[in-house]
Amino acid sequence: MTAVSPDIVAHTWETIATVLSPHGPNGTYNASDFSIHFFLQLAVIILTCRVVGWLGQKFLGQPQVVGEMIAGVILGPSLLGLLFPDFQAAIFPKETKNVLYVGAQFGVGLYMFLVGCSFRGDHFAKKGKSAFAVSLSGIAAPFLLAVLITPWLMTIPGLFAEGISRFNATLFMGACIALTAFPMLARIINERGLANSSLGTLSLTAGAFDDAVSWCVLAVVLATFGGGPGIAVLAIGGGVLWALFVVFIGRRLLAPLGRAVEARGEMSYTVLAITLICFCTSAFVMDVVGIHAIFGGFILGTAMPRGKFVQELKQKVEPLAVIMLLPMFFTYSGLNTRLDMVNSLSLLLVALAILAVSVLAKFGACYAAARISGEDNRTALGIGALMNSRGLMELIIINIGLQKGIIGPALFSMLVLMAIVTTVMASPVFEMVYGRKARESGELGAVPDNAAS
Amino acid sequence: MTAVSPDIVAHTWETIATVLSPHGPNGTYNASDFSIHFFLQLAVIILTCRVVGWLGQKFLGQPQVVGEMIAGVILGPSLLGLLFPDFQAAIFPKETKNVLYVGAQFGVGLYMFLVGCSFRGDHFAKKGKSAFAVSLSGIAAPFLLAVLITPWLMTIPGLFAEGISRFNATLFMGACIALTAFPMLARIINERGLANSSLGTLSLTAGAFDDAVSWCVLAVVLATFGGGPGIAVLAIGGGVLWALFVVFIGRRLLAPLGRAVEARGEMSYTVLAITLICFCTSAFVMDVVGIHAIFGGFILGTAMPRGKFVQELKQKVEPLAVIMLLPMFFTYSGLNTRLDMVNSLSLLLVALAILAVSVLAKFGACYAAARISGEDNRTALGIGALMNSRGLMELIIINIGLQKGIIGPALFSMLVLMAIVTTVMASPVFEMVYGRKARESGELGAVPDNAAS
Repeated sequence: MTAVSPDIVAHTWETIATVLSPHGPNGTYNASDFSIHFFLQLAVIILTCRVVGWLGQKFLGQPQVVGEMIAGVILGPSLLGLLFPDFQAAIFPKETKNVLYVGAQFGVGLYMFLVGCSFRGDHFAKKGKSAFAVSLSGIAAPFLLAVLITPWLMTIPGLFAEGISRFNATLFMGACIALTAFPMLARIINERGLANSSLGTLSLTAGAFDDAVSWCVLAVVLATFGGGPGIAVLAIGGGVLWALFVVFIGRRLLAPLGRAVEARGEMSYTVLAITLICFCTSAFVMDVVGIHAIFGGFILGTAMPRGKFVQELKQKVEPLAVIMLLPMFFTYSGLNTRLDMVNSLSLLLVALAILAVSVLAKFGACYAAARISGEDNRTALGIGALMNSRGLMELIIINIGLQKGIIGPALFSMLVLMAIVTTVMASPVFEMVYGRKARESGELGAVPDNAAS
Repeated sequence: MTAVSPDIVAHTWETIATVLSPHGPNGTYNASDFSIHFFLQLAVIILTCRVVGWLGQKFLGQPQVVGEMIAGVILGPSLLGLLFPDFQAAIFPKETKNVLYVGAQFGVGLYMFLVGCSFRGDHFAKKGKSAFAVSLSGIAAPFLLAVLITPWLMTIPGLFAEGISRFNATLFMGACIALTAFPMLARIINERGLANSSLGTLSLTAGAFDDAVSWCVLAVVLATFGGGPGIAVLAIGGGVLWALFVVFIGRRLLAPLGRAVEARGEMSYTVLAITLICFCTSAFVMDVVGIHAIFGGFILGTAMPRGKFVQELKQKVEPLAVIMLLPMFFTYSGLNTRLDMVNSLSLLLVALAILAVSVLAKFGACYAAARISGEDNRTALGIGALMNSRGLMELIIINIGLQKGIIGPALFSMLVLMAIVTTVMASPVFEMVYGRKARESGELGAVPDNAAS
């Protein structure tokens, strides 16, 4: 064995540092600087997300997505940037953030498109009183508590945008609290064969209903925030028109794609290309009118043909979307997360208050509603735990809020904490009150491996 | 039917124009401007590539890749920008080119990685005298003619970089002329079951050999161009060391991935993630030492496990790479192609001279070598046509040349023309001399649908 000479190490590091510094005129980054950084960033991002995700699964029984949410925060200024600021800045210089942003937006849009493709109207199952009670309390409690907490939050400088109306700030907070990780919830329930149980029916109904309301509220906030009434009319009018067009006319125009896949037994590149063109167009239209690209992705997804088409589409698109593009989103989100901004006892108390309110409004209210409607304690606790999990969806909504300037980086960071904690809570609580017993009786399958969101 | 009011049209266009204009401080583009443009660009790019590719297949019997090469040029300043400059600039403002560039580089790197994964050493088949003659003339003639033509080209201002040595300029031209579209060639020959015919054996051997030499020559040019001797040593030393490491040690380290896929019967997300991390690392290393990311992708590809692993990898990665990322590369290349720079009779003659030399050096030399070695006329013509086709590979090498500043935009545009014309020639010539007869006798299958490169 030969010892590596310190000279060689120093020289190698120097070379890498030179390569990673800007090469364009006046110290700017030129095109090839961006692509060099991109390969490095992607290697670091995928590696970190996989390792942290694996650790979370192995030692904490958490789904992969929880690890990836945390991995993003680790790579940002909250940890890597705090410990090794030069190193972090060399890998993620702020000039390259635009490229990461585009990949992240594309990834999240594509993911919401796939969520839309899996969306089943029959999740709105009927279980009479209980379903109504859980759905309603899962949306009423968050908005009620948002009405109480927002005026106080607005007194703290820097949390919300200057000059935002109390109405919009309250709606945004309400939507943030009311949101659930519906795609994850649906996957867990379907994969464990709980779709026909009380817990499954109630969670799916309430999750779908509450999320639909939250996203609509966000759309209204985006449509009315910042611009004049003309812009709001364009946003709401344009958004509704496009959604109606996609759902009623688009669905019929797209149906031949489904038949082509069924006839051929697989999805040809032509069909996949047309699908991607439609996705990009829908995302673009929703961006143009002033809502957000992810709505375009989701609404188009609900109108795509079902069956073999969706199956083939997922096979061809999901791997890169889940392994590469979503981690770019988690990292972009983590780069904006500055836990060091929660740097005083009073701000920490604010963060804890938001967390407590969020748990109370979803876990508490849904549990109570289920109990009052006559469900047993175990079922009600399971429902509460699932409804309280916000996951990727929460990161999406707060990233939109930050990007559009509705909230500032401090509140953003507090909401990242809330998203992580409530998502981390879900698995152990669900396991404790529901999983262990159900698994013993063979009612419950294994934890799904690749669950994203 | 109601007529659309001109007001609404004007208002819609105005809205879109506003959306597409920069929203950052001081008239710069901010992050969300980039993502809005990205969705629009992607829709336009995929649509154009598919439509032009389809037209080429339908009416000219050309493989999809030819249409996509032309589609890229159409979207650039040579056509769309000439006819509708405002419209073209609104869709592809130069600020957003960096994002397109990163996607293009990533796509080409990933594609070369997949090419490497399909690379089979046994293509270097032995057919004695003929194989030797065709391989040798396919590399000797291009470099010989490059020696003759380059001094003349260097007298024309703007074609090459200022101060480039005649040695490097000649090597670069030689590599450009000697290159074949080996991946396309291999696919055509394998899919048509010609691998054991004279034509198949000779073309594959000579194509693989000539391309290997060309890429090595390019690596030498990149290593020695621009920097001092220290940089050249780092580039050649680092590149060779990394290649040796990947091929001899990397192969063994990667073998368990192949066994994991075989054992499970499919590729898990973990294996795919590890594969992507390795790909990004290899691309990054080759970029850092000063060669180019695509070499990192290709060399790693040759070291990946074979069998089920490659099959699963292609299924999961190829669709997005071929439908979305490669068209981004064609478009990026097309945006740099300025056929309007070939704007005088003398420059047009230069372009034609380059084309003539390229055809002579590959088609002519390989045909002659095959004939002299005793192949029949039909086989020799078929070999010449295939060896003369340069496709995507040519675009890759000249884009590297342009990006690194070896050649200027005028010579780049002439070489784009050469790439397109020689690739377009291949199908009809091959069909005329070989295909029609072979198809009648049932020896030849249908033209492959999705052939990229």
